[in-house]
Amino acid sequence: LRVRKIPGAEEALMLIDSIYIHEAEKNKGKWKAYFKNNNPIHAEFGGGKGKFIIEMAISNPHINFIMVDMVTEVMLKAAQKAQELELSNLKMIRIDLRYAKQFFDANELERIYLNFSDPWPKKKHYKRRLTYRDFLMTYRDILIPDGEIHFKTDNRGLFEFSLNEFAELDLVMKNISLDLHKNSDVPYCTTEYEEKFIALGQPIYRIEVKFRNEKKES
Amino acid sequence: LRVRKIPGAEEALMLIDSIYIHEAEKNKGKWKAYFKNNNPIHAEFGGGKGKFIIEMAISNPHINFIMVDMVTEVMLKAAQKAQELELSNLKMIRIDLRYAKQFFDANELERIYLNFSDPWPKKKHYKRRLTYRDFLMTYRDILIPDGEIHFKTDNRGLFEFSLNEFAELDLVMKNISLDLHKNSDVPYCTTEYEEKFIALGQPIYRIEVKFRNEKKES
Repeated sequence: LRVRKIPGAEEALMLIDSIYIHEAEKNKGKWKAYFKNNNPIHAEFGGGKGKFIIEMAISNPHINFIMVDMVTEVMLKAAQKAQELELSNLKMIRIDLRYAKQFFDANELERIYLNFSDPWPKKKHYKRRLTYRDFLMTYRDILIPDGEIHFKTDNRGLFEFSLNEFAELDLVMKNISLDLHKNSDVPYCTTEYEEKFIALGQPIYRIEVKFRNEKKES
Repeated sequence: LRVRKIPGAEEALMLIDSIYIHEAEKNKGKWKAYFKNNNPIHAEFGGGKGKFIIEMAISNPHINFIMVDMVTEVMLKAAQKAQELELSNLKMIRIDLRYAKQFFDANELERIYLNFSDPWPKKKHYKRRLTYRDFLMTYRDILIPDGEIHFKTDNRGLFEFSLNEFAELDLVMKNISLDLHKNSDVPYCTTEYEEKFIALGQPIYRIEVKFRNEKKES
Protein backbone atom coordinates (compact mmCIF):
# COMPACT_ATOMS: atom_id res chain seq x y z
CA LEU A 1 0.00 0.00 0.00
CA ARG A 2 1.49 3.32 -1.08
CA VAL A 3 0.09 6.31 0.71
CA ARG A 4 0.36 9.98 -0.08
CA LYS A 5 1.92 11.90 2.79
CA ILE A 6 -0.58 14.15 4.55
CA PRO A 7 1.05 17.10 6.32
CA GLY A 8 0.07 17.15 9.98
CA ALA A 9 -1.31 13.59 9.95
CA GLU A 10 0.82 12.58 12.92
CA GLU A 11 -0.39 15.51 14.98
CA ALA A 12 -4.01 14.93 13.94
CA LEU A 13 -3.77 11.27 14.93
CA MET A 14 -2.34 12.09 18.34
CA LEU A 15 -5.28 14.39 19.02
CA ILE A 16 -7.69 11.45 18.68
CA ASP A 17 -6.56 10.17 22.05
CA SER A 18 -9.82 8.37 22.82
CA ILE A 19 -8.83 5.89 20.09
CA TYR A 20 -5.16 6.28 19.31
CA ILE A 21 -2.64 5.34 21.99
CA HIS A 22 0.67 7.08 21.55
CA GLU A 23 2.87 5.37 24.14
CA ALA A 24 1.43 1.91 23.76
CA GLU A 25 4.35 0.11 25.40
CA LYS A 26 3.14 1.45 28.75
CA ASN A 27 0.10 -0.82 28.40
CA LYS A 28 2.13 -4.01 28.08
CA GLY A 29 0.70 -6.52 30.55
CA LYS A 30 -2.04 -4.06 31.51
CA TRP A 31 -4.34 -4.06 28.51
CA LYS A 32 -7.35 -5.43 30.37
CA ALA A 33 -6.92 -2.76 33.02
CA TYR A 34 -6.66 -0.16 30.29
CA PHE A 35 -9.96 -1.29 28.76
CA LYS A 36 -11.40 -1.30 32.31
CA ASN A 37 -13.00 -4.73 31.91
CA ASN A 38 -12.08 -8.39 31.69
CA ASN A 39 -13.24 -8.98 28.11
CA PRO A 40 -11.04 -10.91 25.69
CA ILE A 41 -8.77 -8.87 23.46
CA HIS A 42 -8.52 -9.38 19.70
CA ALA A 43 -5.90 -7.58 17.65
CA GLU A 44 -5.71 -6.90 13.95
CA PHE A 45 -2.16 -6.67 12.71
CA GLY A 46 -2.16 -4.40 9.69
CA GLY A 47 -5.58 -2.82 9.97
CA GLY A 48 -5.35 -0.24 7.19
CA LYS A 49 -8.35 2.07 7.00
CA GLY A 50 -10.10 0.10 9.68
CA LYS A 51 -13.28 -1.13 7.99
CA PHE A 52 -12.88 -4.69 9.27
CA ILE A 53 -11.98 -3.92 12.85
CA ILE A 54 -14.58 -1.16 13.19
CA GLU A 55 -17.31 -3.53 11.98
CA MET A 56 -16.00 -6.19 14.33
CA ALA A 57 -16.00 -3.76 17.25
CA ILE A 58 -19.57 -2.71 16.52
CA SER A 59 -20.76 -6.33 16.19
CA ASN A 60 -18.91 -7.59 19.25
CA PRO A 61 -19.28 -5.12 22.12
CA HIS A 62 -18.00 -7.69 24.64
CA ILE A 63 -14.66 -8.05 22.92
CA ASN A 64 -11.94 -5.43 23.04
CA PHE A 65 -10.13 -4.71 19.81
CA ILE A 66 -6.70 -3.29 19.13
CA MET A 67 -5.82 -2.28 15.61
CA VAL A 68 -2.13 -2.22 14.78
CA ASP A 69 -0.68 -0.50 11.76
CA MET A 70 2.46 1.32 10.73
CA VAL A 71 1.08 3.96 8.40
CA THR A 72 -0.02 7.20 10.02
CA GLU A 73 -2.17 8.35 7.12
CA VAL A 74 -4.44 5.29 6.97
CA MET A 75 -4.63 5.03 10.75
CA LEU A 76 -5.83 8.60 10.88
CA LYS A 77 -8.84 7.75 8.75
CA ALA A 78 -9.58 4.67 10.82
CA ALA A 79 -9.23 6.62 14.06
CA GLN A 80 -11.48 9.44 12.86
CA LYS A 81 -14.19 6.96 11.95
CA ALA A 82 -13.92 5.09 15.24
CA GLN A 83 -14.09 8.40 17.10
CA GLU A 84 -17.24 9.44 15.26
CA LEU A 85 -18.80 6.12 16.20
CA GLU A 86 -17.73 6.63 19.83
CA LEU A 87 -16.42 3.06 20.05
CA SER A 88 -15.12 2.33 23.54
CA ASN A 89 -13.92 -1.21 22.73
CA LEU A 90 -11.49 -0.25 19.97
CA LYS A 91 -8.04 1.24 20.30
CA MET A 92 -5.31 1.77 17.73
CA ILE A 93 -1.56 1.68 18.04
CA ARG A 94 1.19 2.38 15.58
CA ILE A 95 3.98 -0.14 16.11
CA ASP A 96 6.44 -2.27 14.19
CA LEU A 97 5.26 -5.86 14.65
CA ARG A 98 8.81 -7.13 14.84
CA TYR A 99 8.74 -5.64 18.34
CA ALA A 100 5.23 -6.82 19.23
CA LYS A 101 6.50 -8.29 22.49
CA GLN A 102 7.39 -4.81 23.70
CA PHE A 103 3.68 -4.00 23.55
CA PHE A 104 1.95 -7.24 24.49
CA ASP A 105 2.75 -9.55 27.35
CA ALA A 106 2.45 -13.34 27.25
CA ASN A 107 -1.18 -14.47 26.92
CA GLU A 108 -2.58 -10.96 26.51
CA LEU A 109 -4.34 -11.62 23.19
CA GLU A 110 -7.09 -14.11 22.52
CA ARG A 111 -7.02 -13.74 18.77
CA ILE A 112 -4.96 -12.13 16.02
CA TYR A 113 -6.38 -11.12 12.66
CA LEU A 114 -4.13 -10.81 9.64
CA ASN A 115 -6.09 -9.38 6.73
CA PHE A 116 -4.52 -8.80 3.34
CA SER A 117 -1.04 -8.44 4.73
CA ASP A 118 1.65 -7.11 2.43
CA PRO A 119 2.62 -10.15 0.30
CA TRP A 120 6.25 -9.06 -0.12
CA PRO A 121 6.31 -11.01 -3.38
CA LYS A 122 10.07 -10.94 -3.91
CA LYS A 123 11.63 -14.14 -2.63
CA LYS A 124 14.40 -12.32 -0.78
CA HIS A 125 11.80 -10.44 1.29
CA TYR A 126 10.05 -13.51 2.70
CA LYS A 127 11.13 -12.72 6.25
CA ARG A 128 9.03 -9.57 6.14
CA ARG A 129 5.78 -11.45 5.52
CA LEU A 130 3.60 -11.38 8.63
CA THR A 131 3.15 -15.16 8.47
CA TYR A 132 6.89 -15.83 8.42
CA ARG A 133 7.82 -18.23 11.20
CA ASP A 134 9.58 -15.63 13.36
CA PHE A 135 6.43 -13.54 13.41
CA LEU A 136 4.36 -16.63 14.16
CA MET A 137 6.57 -17.49 17.12
CA THR A 138 6.05 -13.96 18.42
CA TYR A 139 2.29 -14.35 18.03
CA ARG A 140 2.48 -17.61 19.94
CA ASP A 141 4.04 -15.85 22.90
CA ILE A 142 1.48 -13.08 23.13
CA LEU A 143 -1.58 -15.27 22.42
CA ILE A 144 -3.36 -17.29 25.09
CA PRO A 145 -2.71 -21.06 24.77
CA ASP A 146 -5.74 -21.75 22.58
CA GLY A 147 -5.61 -18.35 20.89
CA GLU A 148 -6.22 -18.33 17.18
CA ILE A 149 -4.80 -16.51 14.18
CA HIS A 150 -7.36 -15.74 11.51
CA PHE A 151 -5.69 -14.96 8.23
CA LYS A 152 -7.09 -13.95 4.88
CA THR A 153 -5.58 -12.66 1.69
CA ASP A 154 -6.24 -12.33 -2.02
CA ASN A 155 -2.62 -13.20 -2.75
CA ARG A 156 -2.12 -16.81 -3.78
CA GLY A 157 1.63 -16.68 -3.32
CA LEU A 158 1.32 -15.32 0.20
CA PHE A 159 -1.32 -17.91 1.10
CA GLU A 160 0.84 -20.72 -0.23
CA PHE A 161 3.84 -19.42 1.71
CA SER A 162 1.70 -19.11 4.82
CA LEU A 163 0.28 -22.65 4.58
CA ASN A 164 3.81 -23.99 4.43
CA GLU A 165 4.91 -21.89 7.39
CA PHE A 166 1.90 -23.10 9.39
CA ALA A 167 2.68 -26.70 8.40
CA GLU A 168 6.36 -26.27 9.22
CA LEU A 169 5.51 -25.06 12.73
CA ASP A 170 2.89 -27.82 13.00
CA LEU A 171 0.02 -25.47 13.70
CA VAL A 172 -3.51 -26.81 13.93
CA MET A 173 -5.46 -25.60 10.90
CA LYS A 174 -9.19 -25.31 10.30
CA ASN A 175 -11.83 -23.66 8.14
CA ILE A 176 -9.53 -23.44 5.16
CA SER A 177 -11.06 -21.61 2.23
CA LEU A 178 -9.59 -21.10 -1.24
CA ASP A 179 -12.54 -19.01 -2.41
CA LEU A 180 -14.20 -17.50 0.61
CA HIS A 181 -16.99 -15.69 -1.20
CA LYS A 182 -17.92 -18.49 -3.59
CA ASN A 183 -21.02 -18.86 -1.50
CA SER A 184 -22.49 -15.49 -0.72
CA ASP A 185 -23.46 -16.25 2.87
CA VAL A 186 -20.09 -15.64 4.49
CA PRO A 187 -20.44 -14.58 8.12
CA TYR A 188 -17.18 -12.64 8.23
CA CYS A 189 -16.59 -8.90 8.23
CA THR A 190 -14.77 -7.70 5.13
CA THR A 191 -12.01 -5.16 4.55
CA GLU A 192 -11.87 -2.36 1.97
CA TYR A 193 -9.49 -4.42 -0.16
CA GLU A 194 -11.66 -7.46 0.09
CA GLU A 195 -14.70 -5.63 -1.27
CA LYS A 196 -12.68 -4.72 -4.37
CA PHE A 197 -11.60 -8.30 -4.96
CA ILE A 198 -15.13 -9.60 -4.45
CA ALA A 199 -16.33 -7.09 -7.05
CA LEU A 200 -13.64 -8.35 -9.43
CA GLY A 201 -14.62 -11.97 -8.79
CA GLN A 202 -11.18 -12.83 -7.49
CA PRO A 203 -10.93 -15.55 -4.85
CA ILE A 204 -10.11 -14.74 -1.25
CA TYR A 205 -8.08 -17.29 0.72
CA ARG A 206 -8.72 -17.75 4.41
CA ILE A 207 -7.64 -20.01 7.27
CA GLU A 208 -7.78 -20.24 11.05
CA VAL A 209 -4.77 -21.63 12.88
CA LYS A 210 -3.60 -22.15 16.43
CA PHE A 211 -0.59 -23.56 18.20
CA ARG A 212 -0.61 -26.97 19.83
CA ASN A 213 -0.81 -26.73 23.60
CA GLU A 214 1.91 -29.30 24.17
CA LYS A 215 4.31 -27.02 22.30
CA LYS A 216 3.21 -24.02 24.29
CA GLU A 217 4.25 -25.77 27.47
CA SER A 218 7.67 -26.83 26.20
CA LEU B 1 -13.87 -38.78 -17.17
CA ARG B 2 -16.35 -40.17 -19.64
CA VAL B 3 -15.03 -42.93 -21.81
CA ARG B 4 -16.41 -44.47 -24.95
CA LYS B 5 -16.95 -48.19 -24.56
CA ILE B 6 -14.51 -50.25 -26.59
CA PRO B 7 -15.85 -53.70 -27.47
CA GLY B 8 -13.44 -56.38 -26.31
CA ALA B 9 -11.47 -54.01 -24.06
CA GLU B 10 -11.83 -56.26 -21.06
CA GLU B 11 -10.53 -59.28 -22.95
CA ALA B 12 -7.67 -57.28 -24.47
CA LEU B 13 -6.67 -55.99 -21.03
CA MET B 14 -6.63 -59.50 -19.56
CA LEU B 15 -4.29 -60.64 -22.29
CA ILE B 16 -1.66 -58.15 -21.12
CA ASP B 17 -0.93 -60.32 -18.11
CA SER B 18 2.64 -59.13 -17.69
CA ILE B 19 1.15 -55.80 -16.53
CA TYR B 20 -2.49 -56.29 -15.68
CA ILE B 21 -3.35 -58.47 -12.70
CA HIS B 22 -6.84 -59.88 -12.91
CA GLU B 23 -7.30 -61.47 -9.49
CA ALA B 24 -5.41 -58.86 -7.52
CA GLU B 25 -6.90 -59.84 -4.15
CA LYS B 26 -4.70 -62.95 -4.22
CA ASN B 27 -1.68 -60.69 -3.82
CA LYS B 28 -2.88 -59.08 -0.60
CA GLY B 29 -0.04 -59.30 1.91
CA LYS B 30 2.26 -60.77 -0.75
CA TRP B 31 2.99 -57.86 -3.06
CA LYS B 32 6.73 -57.84 -2.38
CA ALA B 33 6.89 -61.55 -3.16
CA TYR B 34 4.92 -60.93 -6.31
CA PHE B 35 7.43 -58.30 -7.48
CA LYS B 36 10.20 -60.75 -6.49
CA ASN B 37 12.18 -58.11 -4.60
CA ASN B 38 12.10 -56.08 -1.42
CA ASN B 39 11.74 -52.66 -3.04
CA PRO B 40 9.20 -50.17 -1.69
CA ILE B 41 5.80 -50.09 -3.34
CA HIS B 42 4.10 -46.91 -4.50
CA ALA B 43 0.54 -46.94 -5.77
CA GLU B 44 -1.36 -44.44 -7.87
CA PHE B 45 -5.06 -44.42 -7.11
CA GLY B 46 -6.83 -43.35 -10.27
CA GLY B 47 -4.08 -43.67 -12.83
CA GLY B 48 -6.03 -43.01 -16.01
CA LYS B 49 -4.01 -43.45 -19.17
CA GLY B 50 -0.88 -44.03 -17.15
CA LYS B 51 1.46 -41.24 -18.25
CA PHE B 52 2.44 -40.30 -14.70
CA ILE B 53 3.01 -43.79 -13.33
CA ILE B 54 4.83 -45.00 -16.45
CA GLU B 55 7.24 -42.06 -16.24
CA MET B 56 7.67 -42.71 -12.54
CA ALA B 57 8.38 -46.40 -13.17
CA ILE B 58 10.97 -45.56 -15.81
CA SER B 59 12.68 -42.97 -13.59
CA ASN B 60 12.63 -45.11 -10.45
CA PRO B 61 13.62 -48.70 -11.28
CA HIS B 62 14.14 -49.53 -7.59
CA ILE B 63 10.57 -48.74 -6.67
CA ASN B 64 7.63 -50.96 -7.55
CA PHE B 65 4.51 -49.26 -8.82
CA ILE B 66 0.90 -50.32 -8.81
CA MET B 67 -1.59 -48.35 -10.83
CA VAL B 68 -5.19 -48.61 -9.71
CA ASP B 69 -8.12 -47.55 -11.81
CA MET B 70 -11.71 -48.54 -12.42
CA VAL B 71 -12.10 -47.86 -16.13
CA THR B 72 -11.14 -50.73 -18.42
CA GLU B 73 -10.74 -48.59 -21.52
CA VAL B 74 -8.15 -46.18 -20.12
CA MET B 75 -6.32 -48.96 -18.30
CA LEU B 76 -6.00 -50.83 -21.56
CA LYS B 77 -4.09 -47.93 -23.10
CA ALA B 78 -1.87 -47.63 -20.04
CA ALA B 79 -1.20 -51.38 -19.99
CA GLN B 80 -0.38 -51.49 -23.69
CA LYS B 81 2.16 -48.73 -23.26
CA ALA B 82 3.74 -50.32 -20.19
CA GLN B 83 3.94 -53.63 -22.06
CA GLU B 84 5.71 -52.02 -25.03
CA LEU B 85 8.21 -50.50 -22.62
CA GLU B 86 8.70 -53.91 -20.95
CA LEU B 87 8.43 -52.37 -17.50
CA SER B 88 8.92 -55.00 -14.81
CA ASN B 89 8.31 -52.63 -11.86
CA LEU B 90 4.80 -51.59 -12.84
CA LYS B 91 1.56 -53.52 -12.45
CA MET B 92 -2.03 -52.45 -12.89
CA ILE B 93 -5.15 -53.51 -11.10
CA ARG B 94 -8.80 -52.63 -11.61
CA ILE B 95 -10.45 -52.27 -8.23
CA ASP B 96 -12.96 -50.15 -6.38
CA LEU B 97 -10.93 -48.18 -3.81
CA ARG B 98 -13.70 -48.45 -1.25
CA TYR B 99 -12.47 -52.03 -0.91
CA ALA B 100 -8.75 -51.25 -1.02
CA LYS B 101 -8.16 -53.27 2.13
CA GLN B 102 -9.19 -56.41 0.27
CA PHE B 103 -6.18 -55.89 -1.98
CA PHE B 104 -3.54 -54.37 0.29
CA ASP B 105 -2.50 -55.52 3.73
CA ALA B 106 -1.44 -53.22 6.57
CA ASN B 107 1.86 -51.44 5.80
CA GLU B 108 2.13 -52.75 2.25
CA LEU B 109 2.42 -49.38 0.56
CA GLU B 110 5.09 -46.79 1.09
CA ARG B 111 3.35 -44.06 -0.84
CA ILE B 112 0.02 -43.29 -2.49
CA TYR B 113 -0.40 -40.87 -5.37
CA LEU B 114 -3.71 -39.19 -6.02
CA ASN B 115 -3.57 -37.26 -9.27
CA PHE B 116 -6.50 -35.28 -10.60
CA SER B 117 -9.04 -37.41 -8.79
CA ASP B 118 -12.67 -36.96 -9.73
CA PRO B 119 -13.75 -33.80 -7.88
CA TRP B 120 -17.36 -34.93 -7.42
CA PRO B 121 -18.34 -31.26 -7.28
CA LYS B 122 -21.88 -31.76 -6.01
CA LYS B 123 -22.00 -31.33 -2.27
CA LYS B 124 -24.06 -34.47 -1.74
CA HIS B 125 -21.32 -36.56 -3.38
CA TYR B 126 -18.50 -35.51 -1.05
CA LYS B 127 -18.12 -39.02 0.34
CA ARG B 128 -17.02 -40.25 -3.07
CA ARG B 129 -14.02 -37.92 -3.20
CA LEU B 130 -10.80 -39.90 -2.78
CA THR B 131 -9.63 -37.52 -0.07
CA TYR B 132 -12.77 -37.97 2.01
CA ARG B 133 -11.86 -39.03 5.54
CA ASP B 134 -13.09 -42.62 5.17
CA PHE B 135 -10.76 -43.11 2.21
CA LEU B 136 -7.94 -41.46 4.13
CA MET B 137 -8.43 -43.83 7.04
CA THR B 138 -8.22 -46.74 4.62
CA TYR B 139 -5.00 -45.33 3.19
CA ARG B 140 -3.61 -45.03 6.70
CA ASP B 141 -4.12 -48.73 7.27
CA ILE B 142 -2.39 -49.88 4.10
CA LEU B 143 0.47 -47.36 4.26
CA ILE B 144 3.62 -47.90 6.30
CA PRO B 145 3.78 -45.67 9.42
CA ASP B 146 5.67 -42.84 7.71
CA GLY B 147 4.06 -43.46 4.33
CA GLU B 148 3.00 -40.40 2.41
CA ILE B 149 0.08 -39.40 0.24
CA HIS B 150 1.02 -37.11 -2.63
CA PHE B 151 -2.01 -35.36 -4.01
CA LYS B 152 -2.43 -32.97 -6.91
CA THR B 153 -5.41 -31.53 -8.71
CA ASP B 154 -6.48 -28.65 -10.88
CA ASN B 155 -9.76 -28.41 -9.00
CA ARG B 156 -9.82 -25.67 -6.39
CA GLY B 157 -12.94 -26.99 -4.72
CA LEU B 158 -11.48 -30.47 -4.36
CA PHE B 159 -8.20 -29.09 -3.02
CA GLU B 160 -10.02 -26.94 -0.49
CA PHE B 161 -12.13 -29.92 0.60
CA SER B 162 -9.01 -32.05 0.86
CA LEU B 163 -7.05 -29.52 2.94
CA ASN B 164 -9.92 -29.45 5.41
CA GLU B 165 -10.10 -33.25 5.53
CA PHE B 166 -6.33 -33.44 6.12
CA ALA B 167 -6.62 -30.79 8.85
CA GLU B 168 -9.61 -32.55 10.41
CA LEU B 169 -7.64 -35.81 10.67
CA ASP B 170 -4.61 -33.85 11.88
CA LEU B 171 -2.32 -35.07 9.12
CA VAL B 172 1.18 -33.67 8.81
CA MET B 173 1.33 -31.50 5.68
CA LYS B 174 4.29 -30.31 3.63
CA ASN B 175 5.30 -28.94 0.26
CA ILE B 176 1.97 -27.25 -0.28
CA SER B 177 1.67 -25.61 -3.68
CA LEU B 178 -1.20 -23.50 -5.01
CA ASP B 179 0.40 -23.07 -8.43
CA LEU B 180 2.79 -25.93 -8.98
CA HIS B 181 4.07 -24.87 -12.37
CA LYS B 182 4.49 -21.17 -11.61
CA ASN B 183 8.19 -21.87 -11.68
CA SER B 184 9.07 -24.07 -14.61
CA ASP B 185 11.60 -26.22 -12.78
CA VAL B 186 9.19 -28.64 -11.15
CA PRO B 187 10.79 -32.02 -10.51
CA TYR B 188 7.53 -33.97 -10.66
CA CYS B 189 6.17 -36.24 -13.36
CA THR B 190 3.02 -34.89 -14.94
CA THR B 191 -0.23 -36.52 -16.06
CA GLU B 192 -2.08 -36.13 -19.37
CA TYR B 193 -4.62 -33.84 -17.70
CA GLU B 194 -1.92 -31.79 -16.09
CA GLU B 195 -0.25 -31.03 -19.41
CA LYS B 196 -3.53 -29.62 -20.67
CA PHE B 197 -3.92 -27.36 -17.66
CA ILE B 198 -0.33 -26.18 -17.88
CA ALA B 199 -0.95 -25.27 -21.52
CA LEU B 200 -4.03 -23.31 -20.45
CA GLY B 201 -2.07 -21.54 -17.71
CA GLN B 202 -4.35 -22.88 -14.99
CA PRO B 203 -2.84 -23.48 -11.57
CA ILE B 204 -2.21 -26.97 -10.26
CA TYR B 205 -2.59 -27.54 -6.52
CA ARG B 206 -0.36 -30.07 -4.78
CA ILE B 207 0.43 -31.29 -1.27
CA GLU B 208 2.20 -34.12 0.53
CA VAL B 209 0.66 -35.49 3.71
CA LYS B 210 1.24 -38.26 6.19
CA PHE B 211 -0.32 -39.56 9.36
CA ARG B 212 1.15 -38.92 12.76
CA ASN B 213 2.88 -41.99 14.14
CA GLU B 214 1.31 -41.69 17.58
CA LYS B 215 -2.07 -42.09 15.91
CA LYS B 216 -0.91 -45.09 13.92
CA GLU B 217 -0.06 -46.84 17.16
CA SER B 218 -3.33 -46.07 18.91
